[in-house]
Amino acid sequence: MNNQNNGHQAGNGKKTLTPVSKLGEFGLINHLTHNLKLQNASSIKGIGDDAAVIDNRGKLTIVTTDMLVEGIHFDFMYTPMMHLGYKSVVVNLSDIYAMNATPKQITMAVAISSRFTVEAMEEFYAGVEKACNYYKVDLVGGDTTSSRKGMIICVTALGEAQPADIVYRNTAQEHDYICVSGDLGGAYLGLQILEREKKLYLEDPDIQPDLETNAYVVGRQLKPEARNDIADILKSLGIKPTAMIDVSDGLSSDLLHICTQSGLGCRIFEENIPMHPQSVEAAQMFNLPPLTCALNGGEDYELLFTVKPSDIEKLEGIHGIAVIGRMTPAAEGAKLFTTGGQTHRLVAQGWQHL
Amino acid sequence: MNNQNNGHQAGNGKKTLTPVSKLGEFGLINHLTHNLKLQNASSIKGIGDDAAVIDNRGKLTIVTTDMLVEGIHFDFMYTPMMHLGYKSVVVNLSDIYAMNATPKQITMAVAISSRFTVEAMEEFYAGVEKACNYYKVDLVGGDTTSSRKGMIICVTALGEAQPADIVYRNTAQEHDYICVSGDLGGAYLGLQILEREKKLYLEDPDIQPDLETNAYVVGRQLKPEARNDIADILKSLGIKPTAMIDVSDGLSSDLLHICTQSGLGCRIFEENIPMHPQSVEAAQMFNLPPLTCALNGGEDYELLFTVKPSDIEKLEGIHGIAVIGRMTPAAEGAKLFTTGGQTHRLVAQGWQHL
Repeated sequence: MNNQNNGHQAGNGKKTLTPVSKLGEFGLINHLTHNLKLQNASSIKGIGDDAAVIDNRGKLTIVTTDMLVEGIHFDFMYTPMMHLGYKSVVVNLSDIYAMNATPKQITMAVAISSRFTVEAMEEFYAGVEKACNYYKVDLVGGDTTSSRKGMIICVTALGEAQPADIVYRNTAQEHDYICVSGDLGGAYLGLQILEREKKLYLEDPDIQPDLETNAYVVGRQLKPEARNDIADILKSLGIKPTAMIDVSDGLSSDLLHICTQSGLGCRIFEENIPMHPQSVEAAQMFNLPPLTCALNGGEDYELLFTVKPSDIEKLEGIHGIAVIGRMTPAAEGAKLFTTGGQTHRLVAQGWQHL
Repeated sequence: MNNQNNGHQAGNGKKTLTPVSKLGEFGLINHLTHNLKLQNASSIKGIGDDAAVIDNRGKLTIVTTDMLVEGIHFDFMYTPMMHLGYKSVVVNLSDIYAMNATPKQITMAVAISSRFTVEAMEEFYAGVEKACNYYKVDLVGGDTTSSRKGMIICVTALGEAQPADIVYRNTAQEHDYICVSGDLGGAYLGLQILEREKKLYLEDPDIQPDLETNAYVVGRQLKPEARNDIADILKSLGIKPTAMIDVSDGLSSDLLHICTQSGLGCRIFEENIPMHPQSVEAAQMFNLPPLTCALNGGEDYELLFTVKPSDIEKLEGIHGIAVIGRMTPAAEGAKLFTTGGQTHRLVAQGWQHL
């Protein structure tokens, strides 16, 4: 637990903290961004003018926006500032990768109330910078402003792609195989652990949180990564997905987007849905069916995609990509076949027995 | 005054209102955006996938982001939802025009608390659509999410420009003339009127607001327009500005951005600073020096730009563009000469006597 319900202290809390008001809006932006170096040739002009300038040299521009709100999407009781900065970037890049494109730039708008300190914002931007460096994207613009309450973050990510490379959600074909990267449900279970530890902490602030035995799932929640490797893996195998989406709302919701937009149904098989052993363990600890966590957990930021039947052999033996089912005619609906032999209808949140 | 401190009622309030929760996030986005038509050939893919896709056909991409927060940037006591939607778009487009570029797309992220109704959001998006239609930009993506309190709006605008057309802030030259479009101070004085009427209303809700005698300045505050005409006017005169910025923070602040970033000073003359008669009148009513309102008011969304000395003759007799001063060496500082013969130093907020 961070013992900083309203302080957002940097480090051990012994440093002198600086109210943001001391720097003002321009001062704060300048303070936080003056060391930023642009990494991409396409970033012609970054922070410092009315707008940023980008040169994609004939490629298409891909753009996506996400907003994160304190108390809705994150809780400072267990979210360190640096992780929050990192995650704010990652969740947006994930959308760019889900288009089979390469992220190149982000803009970052942040509203904060007067309780935030310059040091807390430094930590936040350190996380933003870490993500930018890791994923090789440039922070090229933004806005820092006041809020009446809490912190609100809005990131827009821009990427580029050759027209022929882009993969949409609405282009899956009947008989296509459904694949997913990595494993599912972990981020949701990490959140359950953090919420439990928060509750225990609020009851007894002297208690030490036990996060280490669940390090994997907690990490999935606090420091997710975007799948920047899948496009290269598939390209090296000579596969272009027929449709793709990132798993942000949960496998059910996101697969249903592909189904609805492609005008198809699907069948997926419980036994093929990838889960980490620690996710299964954590689910059992909370008396939750692991499958439900995988289907509806969300925030896994894995890639869910479909491939042509003729491509499926190429995926054999490829570690970290699971083939979980196939696309079917719309009339067949979206169905889940359990290991126990039952058939369920997939619904956007949760699943119903047929 | 809107008699809707927390209801955000659409129309006359007699309609049945629908809580946003009834539609859910996807339902609301779909409900609000399903009629949107893409207008620009460069908008390859709009709302409905992980990200939007844009084809600028070799031109550069210009991008800017702004966040508007209820209680900080707008007040529902006097801001109709439709105007808010319109203004949210306009303030971002203004930044694109300030780069001498043409806006083409926007993304819109909105966080709202549970007190907002579907009808209120329809009004808001009607305003967004009006602005999109008027300025010929496409809403290509976004995010709608919950807030714990109030409404937060984050707009990212994308534009395009030929590389040679882009005008930055840091490229003014010594001796260049300083020009500004339209008139200044009006938006700030409109805000003072609205704040006064709000106060009167809170003291006596039966009182009828008197906004009509100040329609111009109130309009400047509630329904600003971005100067989409200046680029064409200058082009037709054969002028490319040497530096440009939009007046969002106030003439002083924004001119100082040009000075600092260009490594220059400036001298401007009170007698040349354009104000609308109603702005002067309103300033006098509030016992404010009109000049202060013009220098520091902000939110006028006019364009402030510099032109080469050899271009200045071309501007003679051009209505709506005022030549207010010249760029000087940095050592001379940024100075204002008043009609009374005094010299002041321009500072970012307000001005100090020398």
